[in-house]
Amino acid sequence: MSQDPLVIFTPSGKRGRFPVGTPVLSAARQLGVDLDSVCGGRGICSKCQITPAYGEFPKHGVHVAEDALSAWNAVEQRYDDKRGLKPGRRLGCQATVQGDVVIDVPPESQVHRQVVRKAASTRAVAMDPATRLCLVDVEEPDMHSPTGDLERLERALKEQWDIDAVEADLSLLSKLQKVLRKGGWQVTVALHRDHRGGSARILDLWPGLHEGGLFGLAIDLGSTTIAAHLTDLETGAVIASAGLMNPQIRFGEDLMSRVSYAMMNPGGAAEMTAAVRAALNDLAGDLATQAKIAPELIVETVFVCNPVMHHLLLGVDPVELGQAPFALATAEALHLGAAALDLTAINPRARVYILPCIAGHVGADAAAVALAEEPQNSDDLVLIVDVGTNAELLLGNRSRVLACSSPTGPAFEGAQISAGQRAAPGAIERVEIDPVSKEPRFRVIGCDLWSNEDGFAEATAATGITGICGSGIIEAVAEMRMAGLLDASGLIGSAEQTGSPRSLPEGRTHAYLLHDASAEGGPRITVTQGDIRAIQLAKSALYAGARLLMDEMGVERVDRIVLAGAFGAHISTRHAMVLGMIPDAPLEKVTSAGNAAGTGARIALCNIAARAEIERVVRQITKVETAIAPKFQEHFVAANAIPHFSDPFPELARVVTLPEVSFNAGPDSGGRRRRKRS
Amino acid sequence: MSQDPLVIFTPSGKRGRFPVGTPVLSAARQLGVDLDSVCGGRGICSKCQITPAYGEFPKHGVHVAEDALSAWNAVEQRYDDKRGLKPGRRLGCQATVQGDVVIDVPPESQVHRQVVRKAASTRAVAMDPATRLCLVDVEEPDMHSPTGDLERLERALKEQWDIDAVEADLSLLSKLQKVLRKGGWQVTVALHRDHRGGSARILDLWPGLHEGGLFGLAIDLGSTTIAAHLTDLETGAVIASAGLMNPQIRFGEDLMSRVSYAMMNPGGAAEMTAAVRAALNDLAGDLATQAKIAPELIVETVFVCNPVMHHLLLGVDPVELGQAPFALATAEALHLGAAALDLTAINPRARVYILPCIAGHVGADAAAVALAEEPQNSDDLVLIVDVGTNAELLLGNRSRVLACSSPTGPAFEGAQISAGQRAAPGAIERVEIDPVSKEPRFRVIGCDLWSNEDGFAEATAATGITGICGSGIIEAVAEMRMAGLLDASGLIGSAEQTGSPRSLPEGRTHAYLLHDASAEGGPRITVTQGDIRAIQLAKSALYAGARLLMDEMGVERVDRIVLAGAFGAHISTRHAMVLGMIPDAPLEKVTSAGNAAGTGARIALCNIAARAEIERVVRQITKVETAIAPKFQEHFVAANAIPHFSDPFPELARVVTLPEVSFNAGPDSGGRRRRKRS
Repeated sequence: MSQDPLVIFTPSGKRGRFPVGTPVLSAARQLGVDLDSVCGGRGICSKCQITPAYGEFPKHGVHVAEDALSAWNAVEQRYDDKRGLKPGRRLGCQATVQGDVVIDVPPESQVHRQVVRKAASTRAVAMDPATRLCLVDVEEPDMHSPTGDLERLERALKEQWDIDAVEADLSLLSKLQKVLRKGGWQVTVALHRDHRGGSARILDLWPGLHEGGLFGLAIDLGSTTIAAHLTDLETGAVIASAGLMNPQIRFGEDLMSRVSYAMMNPGGAAEMTAAVRAALNDLAGDLATQAKIAPELIVETVFVCNPVMHHLLLGVDPVELGQAPFALATAEALHLGAAALDLTAINPRARVYILPCIAGHVGADAAAVALAEEPQNSDDLVLIVDVGTNAELLLGNRSRVLACSSPTGPAFEGAQISAGQRAAPGAIERVEIDPVSKEPRFRVIGCDLWSNEDGFAEATAATGITGICGSGIIEAVAEMRMAGLLDASGLIGSAEQTGSPRSLPEGRTHAYLLHDASAEGGPRITVTQGDIRAIQLAKSALYAGARLLMDEMGVERVDRIVLAGAFGAHISTRHAMVLGMIPDAPLEKVTSAGNAAGTGARIALCNIAARAEIERVVRQITKVETAIAPKFQEHFVAANAIPHFSDPFPELARVVTLPEVSFNAGPDSGGRRRRKRS
Repeated sequence: MSQDPLVIFTPSGKRGRFPVGTPVLSAARQLGVDLDSVCGGRGICSKCQITPAYGEFPKHGVHVAEDALSAWNAVEQRYDDKRGLKPGRRLGCQATVQGDVVIDVPPESQVHRQVVRKAASTRAVAMDPATRLCLVDVEEPDMHSPTGDLERLERALKEQWDIDAVEADLSLLSKLQKVLRKGGWQVTVALHRDHRGGSARILDLWPGLHEGGLFGLAIDLGSTTIAAHLTDLETGAVIASAGLMNPQIRFGEDLMSRVSYAMMNPGGAAEMTAAVRAALNDLAGDLATQAKIAPELIVETVFVCNPVMHHLLLGVDPVELGQAPFALATAEALHLGAAALDLTAINPRARVYILPCIAGHVGADAAAVALAEEPQNSDDLVLIVDVGTNAELLLGNRSRVLACSSPTGPAFEGAQISAGQRAAPGAIERVEIDPVSKEPRFRVIGCDLWSNEDGFAEATAATGITGICGSGIIEAVAEMRMAGLLDASGLIGSAEQTGSPRSLPEGRTHAYLLHDASAEGGPRITVTQGDIRAIQLAKSALYAGARLLMDEMGVERVDRIVLAGAFGAHISTRHAMVLGMIPDAPLEKVTSAGNAAGTGARIALCNIAARAEIERVVRQITKVETAIAPKFQEHFVAANAIPHFSDPFPELARVVTLPEVSFNAGPDSGGRRRRKRS
């Protein structure tokens, strides 16, 4: 007798010999080839589609005959008639091996298809969600050996899917009997099994084969905005996204004012909890409507958020987070039911995963950034900066990862700036100042033209020019510094000192006029001395945090810098470095990671191994508490200068030469400056 | 050097040698002596009190010197000053071993003190509840190594109580931080660990040492009444009991009418679920008030109930239980949170345990009866009969246990009886009929006198004589049979046939006049031919069920019979056997177990090993379905005669001789009778 046929799977290259008649799906399973199946080989779900290749394969050393697989069978024919199979495709559970064969598994037939690919990352994220669909045939009840419908369903899951222990919520019991009977004792189960092991959990079930898919929400719950991505749990595709202002803003713009609100008002924390949970339900409802899916198909939600939002989401009074030692009620990752968070707009049995918090000031959002950016897997030393009202900083490489947060305040978001506003159409987002004429030009959100280009006035007529957003103020201040309108100490020069009529006196200080529409009844947008001070405070805090981590790490420089967050995506790295927001580094080594926290949330939603990984990483991160570090104050004061009082910025100096000006009224008018608090 | 001192514990007799200075509590733990402690040896809780004995102990071969234990220390002194120690008592965690000593552990210092003792039982039930109190000292937060308060609590439980994995509900997080700080980082935790292993669960916590105790509810949720016992989870003592009519009665008197209500009315099942849950909250609230305890100290609840009540409690439509194959949604024991059942009147994190159901007609109440009566541990063959609207029957011994239910209908409860009423003051509960004069005498509930005794009229003036309850109708029918007023076929003789003027014509049949107060405007209480038929139907069903089990077991007689339920406690076994309700057996072998289902609920509440045991037993019980057994109908018809058409009742014949009468109008007037349906 000849040998059993050789079966080779691509792209994995896995191969083995199987007896004639072995279904392709069985061969794939035995070899550990990643071939999907919801129906367990019943020829119903079509998830196991494969493409056999015929002819000579010298690379594999085989010849594949036309009859290497069994002939098209009735089940495949029925499926093709009903829904259509792509040309060349076969159902892996129906086609059987007849001779040597090379079988390609297309991406959509892979369970663990790659979903999040990042240039900066050493690995791509593959689908491995906690919740999957399983079709099962349940034994009918028999009054001679009475067992519960649930127990027979559990037995079927054990026998047909090798799932040992199963839990089911009480709420499922009330629909179980109807669904089983409606499906003629065949049902599709949404089964949740996460990285902790233990029992699997039935989240829902549908009569017969459920083809409506399963979905999850990745939610970045920020102090200001809540962003949610509705994600297909089979493909990893984001099928709808939506954002919402955090309604807690009415209780306080920033985190500490919300903590104060909770401290000062009995029931205040509960009020804020109710507000954010209601908003989450609105958001989930909107997304389901937008994607035209039934809300109960949303069976998972992953949250990332800072510690105060974390506690308020959980219904825990954040008061302890407002005072040393900043004790979290719980720091570890949380696994909850949707009902525990009053999430009524999704499946009532949906599971919620909340990433671990790193420390009382460094939350699950920072953990999510770490999950997305993987400092622990970086060969070079990377500083990751996520700027919001609080900045979270991570510094690390394969040997060690450190984390801290720094109270930057809201200046980088345009708040506490005289003409500041949120990033919205009409806001100045880019600024250039001619170093010779000291004249500015700028761009506003919603228009691609610079203010000195033809058609700008017409293009911005609808939105107007309404203020300066975070990235705009950073560029404005940096450009003022580069144009010699601002000295290293942060003083704006007078018209006499700068030679620019745009240097306007304002009390005992000066302001720089960026745009004046007052003649047409519009705003008069200036950068005031107060604005400079606000930016100095914010950037000093940020820089001091980074320096504190570098001290702890024992380094004087970092290899690369990643700016995370919406803010990081919009600011100019060159301007940020002129300001001295971030440590000196080659400009090409300063990159933006976009919404890394949101990416981390999506990764955790799609891949349970990633959850285990981030929990492990967070446990190993060294936490540095800025609030009590004596050196923080020292670093903060030294960072007040623009870019810095004492730290050299050699990489910056290679690309930018900063004018040596000083507008101090005193005798000390050289390159040195005296600290002056506004 | 001499040997270490010998320490002997009584009553266990456990002994061992320990170095001088060993605390008695440590010695007890090392020997596995059952000595309680909530505070873990901190000298706070006083649960570990022991009594040293001094002098000669020839039995143990030791002499105990006066200084065998360390001198009274400051902790003991403080405790004694504050609360008083009984004379001779010491705190086991403070007193240390100095020489050979005999130490008695009083019952109240034993964790596993015996609580349910039953004469009929081969074992006594000891305390081993799922929820216990543990005092722990929690590390304070440290901002240099930030961890959550919950994680530090978990670590303390691990270190101080060797508890590995801990779960805590989200709702606990919101109070955790306040309680920890209020208790100065010392808290008492109510920790739930049941027989399934796995994680322990924190149900609640209190600052410092919690001395308010822990409580549980054992609830027998019947179709007609709900009975609850509030039980001290430390001592097992029932500290308050209460009962309530099941409010579902307004949707249908019996189970099948409730199932019909659910089938006929959309939302009907949910309505009944809401009604019973509201009643449970009322009941729990009443019990807490009655016992003067805070409702949140009720941390566990055990339910026993029939399958329809089981499903309605769970919020599952019972429609499947109303039709073959009588499929339960779930048959296995359930472990739930109080919130899942809307039990808001107890601790929101309280755990609920519901015993397993045996079959679609044989519920958790029958399982509870098995738990209390232990047929699986019986050397002789025992038939256990729990009579309600449905009767549940268990037959078994060490080799095998069988179960079935039988649709007796409500006649045994006084329903469907012309003068029937519930057991309440004024109801006739005992009847005797003189076999010669055919004159009756009776007793009513609320009065200890017989109706022919002096003072009866005065004593019953307040309540009146209002009807006949279940036990009364059984005695009346049996007495009529014994007095020759009723023949074996169930026909009531005419006045001419019986010679009694109390045999009154009623249409084409006759009725027996038990009491006539019509002259005074009171009721006229008779036993009608219709009443006899109703009782015949009920008792035939019961007997047929028992016979079906005996067939399955392959026996013609049982060794003993246990009557369970309130009903069983009140009926006369002799009368029941005259009626042929139960198989023939020596009368002294027919005993009442009282509310065995309720006892089973209490056992499951107090002892987690009992939960494991009943789950194991239920899995092994052979279920016999009466509805589809061809022989059931045959047994039912044969059992229609009083006591039986064909089965001999030799044990009954030894104590009662039944007159050979026949009141059939036809020619067939001997000992045989023709079946006649009313």
